[in-house]
Order: sequence, then C-alpha cells, then structure tokens
Amino acid sequence: MGPSQNFSQFDEDNQLRHFLTTEDIGEKTLLEILDIAESFMTLNTRRVKKVPLLHGKTVVNLFFEPSTRTRTTFEIAAKRLSADVINLSATRMSTTKGETVLDTVKTLEAMHTDMFVVRDGASGTAHLIAAHVPKGVSIINAGDGRHAHPTQAMLDMFTIRQAKGSFKDLSVAITGDILHSRVARSQIHALRQLGVKDIRIIGPATLLPTEIERLGVTTYFDMDKGVEDVDVIMMLRLQLERMDGQLLPGPEEYFRYFGLTEKRVKRAKPDAIVMHPGPINRGLEIASSVADGSQSLILSQVTNGIAVRMAIMAKLMGKKEGEL
Amino acid sequence: MGPSQNFSQFDEDNQLRHFLTTEDIGEKTLLEILDIAESFMTLNTRRVKKVPLLHGKTVVNLFFEPSTRTRTTFEIAAKRLSADVINLSATRMSTTKGETVLDTVKTLEAMHTDMFVVRDGASGTAHLIAAHVPKGVSIINAGDGRHAHPTQAMLDMFTIRQAKGSFKDLSVAITGDILHSRVARSQIHALRQLGVKDIRIIGPATLLPTEIERLGVTTYFDMDKGVEDVDVIMMLRLQLERMDGQLLPGPEEYFRYFGLTEKRVKRAKPDAIVMHPGPINRGLEIASSVADGSQSLILSQVTNGIAVRMAIMAKLMGKKEGEL
Amino acid sequence: MGPSQNFSQFDEDNQLRHFLTTEDIGEKTLLEILDIAESFMTLNTRRVKKVPLLHGKTVVNLFFEPSTRTRTTFEIAAKRLSADVINLSATRMSTTKGETVLDTVKTLEAMHTDMFVVRDGASGTAHLIAAHVPKGVSIINAGDGRHAHPTQAMLDMFTIRQAKGSFKDLSVAITGDILHSRVARSQIHALRQLGVKDIRIIGPATLLPTEIERLGVTTYFDMDKGVEDVDVIMMLRLQLERMDGQLLPGPEEYFRYFGLTEKRVKRAKPDAIVMHPGPINRGLEIASSVADGSQSLILSQVTNGIAVRMAIMAKLMGKKEGEL
Repeated sequence: MGPSQNFSQFDEDNQLRHFLTTEDIGEKTLLEILDIAESFMTLNTRRVKKVPLLHGKTVVNLFFEPSTRTRTTFEIAAKRLSADVINLSATRMSTTKGETVLDTVKTLEAMHTDMFVVRDGASGTAHLIAAHVPKGVSIINAGDGRHAHPTQAMLDMFTIRQAKGSFKDLSVAITGDILHSRVARSQIHALRQLGVKDIRIIGPATLLPTEIERLGVTTYFDMDKGVEDVDVIMMLRLQLERMDGQLLPGPEEYFRYFGLTEKRVKRAKPDAIVMHPGPINRGLEIASSVADGSQSLILSQVTNGIAVRMAIMAKLMGKKEGEL
Repeated sequence: MGPSQNFSQFDEDNQLRHFLTTEDIGEKTLLEILDIAESFMTLNTRRVKKVPLLHGKTVVNLFFEPSTRTRTTFEIAAKRLSADVINLSATRMSTTKGETVLDTVKTLEAMHTDMFVVRDGASGTAHLIAAHVPKGVSIINAGDGRHAHPTQAMLDMFTIRQAKGSFKDLSVAITGDILHSRVARSQIHALRQLGVKDIRIIGPATLLPTEIERLGVTTYFDMDKGVEDVDVIMMLRLQLERMDGQLLPGPEEYFRYFGLTEKRVKRAKPDAIVMHPGPINRGLEIASSVADGSQSLILSQVTNGIAVRMAIMAKLMGKKEGEL
Repeated sequence: MGPSQNFSQFDEDNQLRHFLTTEDIGEKTLLEILDIAESFMTLNTRRVKKVPLLHGKTVVNLFFEPSTRTRTTFEIAAKRLSADVINLSATRMSTTKGETVLDTVKTLEAMHTDMFVVRDGASGTAHLIAAHVPKGVSIINAGDGRHAHPTQAMLDMFTIRQAKGSFKDLSVAITGDILHSRVARSQIHALRQLGVKDIRIIGPATLLPTEIERLGVTTYFDMDKGVEDVDVIMMLRLQLERMDGQLLPGPEEYFRYFGLTEKRVKRAKPDAIVMHPGPINRGLEIASSVADGSQSLILSQVTNGIAVRMAIMAKLMGKKEGEL
C-alpha cells in the first residue's frame, strides 16, 4: 500500500503524532493505547462521563465520505474529553483532488484546529493531510478507501483482549469481502504485531486479494474449515452494491457459503467470540441468532470504540496512562 | 392507541423513567413537571442561562422524521442543562423497520447514551425503543406518527396555567385536523387529567375521528358555536398536503369555516387566550392579526417549551424541584 | 444601498448593538474591534483556547444561504467564547419571504437566543431581522446578497494593519467581480473610514458598478496599471456561474486580463501583500504560485478571522478591551 511507505506517524522523539495505520506501529504503542483505553472504560459508566483532558482544544471531524455512525463515535469521544467539536461533511469540490483537500485542510488548520479526524473514500487521504500539517496538529484516520481503518482495528483488539486476556496463542478468523476491506487490512496488521500467529482469511476467491498471504495469513475458501477451532471470528460487512453478480452470487447463495450460522459457530472453540464492525446485514453475512447470541460481542465493540478513540486522542495529545 | 397499552413509562418504584405520552401519567406527575419548569423560567432570562444538572450526560436527538424546530428546542434545553448533545437525522435503512431502528438504538446505547429524544413518522416508535433500553436510559417522545407529542402538550398546559392560574373550571377548544394530530391527542389526555371538564373539538367532519368522544370531549362542526365562551382556543397546524380536495375543501373555504378570525375570537371569553404549536400558516388556519394579536400566546409557548423540556429531562434524571 | 438607510446598528447610548455593515460605523469603533481582536490572537495559540466570556449565552447560526466555511469560523469563534452554538441551515419556506424569515427569527428569539449570525442570499435580511428583535439580542451580518459582508472586511482590515502597521498612506487595489461582491462593498467602506485615500477598483467593465466612483474609489480596466505601486492587492472570488459568456469571457481570457500572476505582483510595491477571502480558484483569479507565495496572507486572513469574529461577538455583548 503506497500511502504508508514514505511517511512516519511518529515524530522525531518517537512519540505517536498521528494515528494513520496499524502497520508498523509496534506492539508497545498498540498495548499502551489499549491500556489507556482501559482507564476510560470506567469513566464511560460513571455518572459524569467527562474529563477535561482536551478542554480548549478544537477537533474537526472532516468526513469526505459520509458515515453517521463512525462520526458519532468520534464526536462523543471528543466531547467526553471536553474538546470543542466541529462536524464537517465536506464534499470534494474538484477533480484535482489532492490540491483541494489540502486547501480545505490548510484553511481549517489556520483556525487553529488541534486535531482532524479524516474519512475519505480514497486511499491515502489521511496520510496526505498528515504530511502537510504543522507540528502540533494531529490526524486520525477514520477510514481511507480500501487502505486502513485503524481505530476500528484497535477497538477490535481491545475487545479480543477483554475477552481472551492476551493475544499470543489465539486463532483468529476474518471472513467476508477482504478485497475491499480497509478494516481487514488494519486488523491483520494489528494482530500480527500483537503476536497472533494463526490468522485465517475466509471468503470467496473473487473477494480475496491475491497478494494477501504475504501478510502472514492463511486463506480459506471453505468457511466450515476456516472457522474450525478458532478463538475469534471477525465478520466483515458486505457492501450490498457488490451483489450485482460480478464478484458475488446472490444473497442466499452467499449466506449459504459464507454466512455465520449457529452451526458454523459450533465448529469454532466452545468459548469462541463473534465480532462485526457493524452495521450488520442480518441474514446476509450473519444470522440474527448469532448476532444477538451469547457469543456475540458486537455491542461491546461499540462500547469499547468510545474508550479506544478517547485513548487515541489522549495519546496523540501527549498523555500517558499515569497522567489521566 | 396500541403503543401505550402494554408498557409503563414509570419504573418499579413509580418514578417517571420515560416520557412517552400524557395518557395515564397522572395529575401529580403532570403538576410536578409544571412546577419544575417554573423554576427553569427564571434561568432562561438570566445572564448565564446554564446549570450543570446534566453535565457529563450524553443526550442523542434521534430524529427519523425531520423537524428543525423541535430538534432545536431539545438541543437548547439539553445544552442549558450542560449535557453533551448529539444530533442524528437518521433515515430508516430498511423496510423491516422495527429491527433496524432497534439496531440503531442499541448501537447508540452501547456508547453510553443517557437519554434519547425520539421523533418518528410512525406511531409507537418511542414506546418500542423504551421497551428495549436498559435501566438508566430514558426516552423522550418528541412526536410519533399520529399517536402522541407529549412535550408539546406539556408546554401548552404550562402556558394555560401561566395565563389562567388553574385548570379546574376552564373551557378549552381545540380546532383543526384532529384526525391526524398527535398534538391534539396529547393535549386532550393532559387536559382531562388536570381536571378540565369542558373540552371541545372543532373541525370538519372529515377531520374528526369517529371514536373521539370516548375521550370525554364534545365535537363541534360549527366553529362559531365551538368557541363560544371558551377560555382557551388551541389551534392545530394544518398540513398543506391534505388540501387536495379529498378530506378538505380549498384553503379559502377552509379559512371561511374554520380559520381563527378576530370575529371568532370575540365569541370566546373576553380574556380568552389563543395558542398554536407553530409554525403557523397565516391566513389558512389563523388570521395574521389574531396570531400577532394581544390574546395570542404563540411566542410564549415557544419560550415555555424550553423550560418544560428542561424540566422533563431533569425529572427523568431523578431531580426533584427542591434539588434544582 | 437601501438596507442601511433607516436603521442604526448603535443603540441610544451609542453602543454597538448589531454588526450589520462597515458603512458609517466610524473609525473609533473599527479600531476598537481591531484592538479587541488583537487580544484574542494570543488566546488562539494557547494550549487552552477558551475563555468564559459568553458562557451561558446561546448563539444561533442562521444560514439561509449555505456556507460551510463561514459558518465554521463563527461556530469556532463562539465556542472559544464558551457560548452554546446552534447551527440552523434554514431554507426559506415561502415566497412571502420577509414574513417567514421574521416568524423563524421570532420563534428562535422566544427561546432566549442572545445572538444571531445571519447569512442570506438577499440583501437586507440581517437589517430586517435587527429591526425586529428586542433589546438584548444582537445580530451579526455574515453576508447578505450583494450588500455587505462586514466581518470579512474587518478581518481584512486586521490583516492589513498587522502587515502594514497603519492605514493612512496605503494604496489598496481590489480586483475582480466588484458588481456582485458584498465583500468589496464592505472593504471599501471600512478602508475609507480608516483613512485610506487611494482605493483602486480593478475589473472588466461588465463587472464594475457604474455608480462605484461615488464611494471615493478610482476604477481601472487595465490590471497592470491598477496594481502599480500599491501596498495591498485584495482579490475577490469569481463565481464560476458568471462564466457563461454574458458578463465574462472564458476562464483563460479572464486570467490573462485579470488573474493575479507573479509578474503583476511585481508591478506593486516590493513589500506589497496579497489577500483573498477564499476559497480561491487557482488559475482563474489567482496563480497558484502567488496564492502560496511569500507575499500571500490568505491563510493569515483565516486565522485572523477567528479572532476578529470573537472580538465582534465580545464587543456586542458589551465587553471592552480592558475587561477581556
């Protein structure tokens, strides 16, 4: 993936300055973010769910691609840190895109924005912006094209650790449209760095990227085999627009081969957990009974997502766990 | 009305937990909310219009049906109570509606939302949500289909008491499209419980529901007779899309028979008050001179709406008048 | 210009109550706002960019004409003053416009709004509203039709003073579509009152209003002559919809005659500054190399815009510089 090759999300003192990708971020930083998130978990259940950590800071949610759900999680996270939040649902104004995006960002940055949460349909936008903002301004990648969705991956890691205690000996299956999924890519990078050795990628051949095994994963075209004895099943959301007969058969056939049913969950370990980034397509990639079942952690993922995003924001502002 | 049959907005300790309907809420609770609202009236004219009552709480305005005006009143009310407010103009994503709405709500609830303000074009949505949220989460119905709009009714009750002192001996006329009006239904329930005996429903036969008299009201097809000697005239907003010749004649004819003119106001008591939930259709259901006249309390209703919504939010969070 | 004839933005004690136009506002008040803005410049670079000056106040951004950029600057300015901010992208609901706008405003005002920031495509809307709100409510004009955009002009004045120290002996060129520009009108009024004697208006004959010289400016149809030896070049944004061949030739021809190129900048004084209200059309009214060049203050304008808008809000709330 081009975007992350020539740019570091760390500053010269090796402090995390942006949060753009889970690739090459390092186990130490990943665990540190999870630990900070832990400390925010109790806050979010308290009567007063607010700390003054980002008081007087301005956070701009800059969403070139609409996503009410993700935007809301960042808005809540920033407000609970007492930041002032500005929501901008920007639309690209020109085809000479890089230029215009940077003009927009430079303008907002001139208003002394401290942090941008950026989402875009094109890969590399968050990196591009990060490469151009001055010291003191941090960029969080809230999803860029097919490239990365690192905060989603972090909340998944948090959820796995919460359920399983550690990562070392886990078998993890990721199922669905890997080819188009920025979530899968960020999950794989994070799992690898956290020491997970058995990562399985499950999906129809048309939706598995050819080069994927270089990332250190094993591919399965047969879901029944893929989920066998795993500790964690992570489902991906299927974009319904792919259901046009080109890359995928119809919904019934997809569900028959790759839908997560109770029967398939039983092939995994008895205490296996089921995850999904949401919103779920019931009956398409996951059976309703599984989504709502006792092994599903889908709503925990949402809860954890607030704490994890608060942790990333706090970390970028230079806070360590002891200081929170 | 189906929605309210099988579900209580009170918890096991008989404390108000949700605010879904004025039906069966009881005179004591109605009066208590009005009293709490009284205490917020002075706050809203102070230099600093803010109290920390909901500091650290997250309030989500979940509007499936757009209404800038109503959303704004709730946003202002929540912010004056120091809550963090998230506005979501959701659109239903599927026809299997109940399921999707609940998925949306469960996701937001997993972010530790404390209160949802819900508006929907379908009757029963706020009840449906209230029946599924865990302890500690409150739902306010900001209008559901033709069923109820209880906060509007409460601000109307507040406005009546402010002008008339008490409810016992009042004659109240409600005029317009009763058939499609959630406002009228909530007003009637509130008035009845507050002891108003003479409630008159005025409108063309096509817009008066057949079963309405069972609610303890008297129907009038002749507006001149209906407003005779009343203390309060409450107009409803006419939806212009009904003006298609099916249920209603044209606008001129409607105004001739059911528009509130100065002449008709004179048939009421000399100190009668005129109310309207807004926005008004000048010259359709009400003459401009009446809307802007000395007996009109239309803008007072708006002012009172902030205090009443603050009161309901405070009450749901377990605050009593003395604690404010 | 009609709107400002019969209405004063000062109250009976000669205190600035609204900020509607730079016309007739007086040098003293203009300088006072610039001085207050100065004190906010340091705030905006501090770790905590927030003062409690408008704590407990409600500011409504009432935008009948969409403008994410301008709305954002006001939202940030108000939040840094600790106000509660409500964003309303209103659409006019009827053709009998004055009435409906006032109904909307009266409704919002009944919610005890302290300040309205108003933008509209029609000239005079901010004045119309200001003439109808009660004492204690202030209106800021964020752009009305072709009439005025006074906060933009003020941030331009701030930027000029920041660069040049004073106004007295400056030569200032304003280039572009003067005919349709509320920015140009507000700039000219401000410059005149601040004592600038040499104000030059540059553009094609079709875009220069015939009566413009009465404002005390000199017109130039030849840009090379117009920018000769000036201290300040202020570009206007060209509305692309004018590029239909009626008022303007094609983009290439426009840029050839009136685009700001490096060559043309060289005709001005060596230390001349280049300004533009943004967003810029690169290669249409200004060359990219000039926009991004060392003489360009375009991003400073944005930065200054926050401080200037904070200053105007503070001033309207009766704050003097020493009290900040």
